[in-house]
Amino acid sequence: MGETKKTTIVLFSGDYDKVMAAYIIANGAAAYDHEVTIFHTFWGLNALRKDEPIQADKNFIEKMFGWMMPRGANKMGLSKMNFAGFGPKMIKDVMKKHNAMPLPDLIELAKEQDVKLVACQMTVDLLGLRQEEIMDGVEFAGVAAYLADAEDGNVNLFI
Amino acid sequence: MGETKKTTIVLFSGDYDKVMAAYIIANGAAAYDHEVTIFHTFWGLNALRKDEPIQADKNFIEKMFGWMMPRGANKMGLSKMNFAGFGPKMIKDVMKKHNAMPLPDLIELAKEQDVKLVACQMTVDLLGLRQEEIMDGVEFAGVAAYLADAEDGNVNLFI
Amino acid sequence: MGETKKTTIVLFSGDYDKVMAAYIIANGAAAYDHEVTIFHTFWGLNALRKDEPIQADKNFIEKMFGWMMPRGANKMGLSKMNFAGFGPKMIKDVMKKHNAMPLPDLIELAKEQDVKLVACQMTVDLLGLRQEEIMDGVEFAGVAAYLADAEDGNVNLFI
Repeated sequence: MGETKKTTIVLFSGDYDKVMAAYIIANGAAAYDHEVTIFHTFWGLNALRKDEPIQADKNFIEKMFGWMMPRGANKMGLSKMNFAGFGPKMIKDVMKKHNAMPLPDLIELAKEQDVKLVACQMTVDLLGLRQEEIMDGVEFAGVAAYLADAEDGNVNLFI
Repeated sequence: MGETKKTTIVLFSGDYDKVMAAYIIANGAAAYDHEVTIFHTFWGLNALRKDEPIQADKNFIEKMFGWMMPRGANKMGLSKMNFAGFGPKMIKDVMKKHNAMPLPDLIELAKEQDVKLVACQMTVDLLGLRQEEIMDGVEFAGVAAYLADAEDGNVNLFI
Repeated sequence: MGETKKTTIVLFSGDYDKVMAAYIIANGAAAYDHEVTIFHTFWGLNALRKDEPIQADKNFIEKMFGWMMPRGANKMGLSKMNFAGFGPKMIKDVMKKHNAMPLPDLIELAKEQDVKLVACQMTVDLLGLRQEEIMDGVEFAGVAAYLADAEDGNVNLFI
């Protein structure tokens, strides 16, 4: 019969290593024909930001959040041993040497595999992000949509 | 037939933003008629502390834990960009501006929606907290009670 | 009838307190006859390292990771209030006073209860760890093996 399995991840973290873990699990699950959703909330939202600065009309606090948060996955720090940005460089060098996919490629792969990427609308509003700052192909939704996916899920994770 | 769905969250973190995420998911799930439990362990226990100091007979180490840990959700720091307490202020200002519920209100709402709030007895003992330091309406239980809730759960998260 | 319940934990964190939470849940679940797997990835892998230094032929970056990461659970720091290593000492003292099991004993107990301990092969390679640096009785596997366990799981957690 084969009912489809479902994997639903809340990606709260904005650390390079944790985002990488989320996307590796998501891509693995998609490869095994799971229906996969990543719900990006709080700092995890930064994984979906375009890496060029976008002109937008923002107030002072929104500008501050915009400056201080990393623009896109590639600019994120590590959860451990970040060493002012040296840690991510070490990890990226090592990944390159082992032919492991860097994070932006993992995100691209997830899109190609039809992983549903969702941005938490409440966080977008709170942090003053604009829709045009978020990469294409992302849906905007709230906790109700997350729960609708998660409540029938086989693998539910909060990362 | 409509069997009741279950959401069970282990709240380990004592960061304002993560606790907020936990309570937003919990309140959402309760609104969708899930049976919801939040099991507060380690630093997550601090979300349940009363915000006034409570007189209690404690030894030196217990007093130190008591002083160093935040008394209640409102005094917690952020997991990222805490900036010596300025980050939480920014977040709270922004939430107010967007009419988002501050964390203490989210906890009150959870109680009103009959979300079961559990304090991990082992952590209470380890950190030397006293039952009178914990807000009313909280159950005290251990990992066995958590597993009994979680093993039939639809949405299980560790935050 | 009694179909076996399953608990599957991704242990990403290398913090003493979080690793302890993972093993307490795992041991509890095993005591309730769950089939339990802990999949150690990224910093969580350090919980499985032998505590003596192992001679191995490594390049410079691999040596740096080897030096900087804790050798075994007992050398890990706390996720909060680490205070340059004083925090873990406080926690360990308090656990001793309450006759709570220290982390290395929790790991031993997990082995005795047949909790399946898995080391993420990709992380082992990336961090340049050698199989002889990992404690005995550990399996090496990838995200596919994790998903096979998790997709039928009752309790799935990312810690």
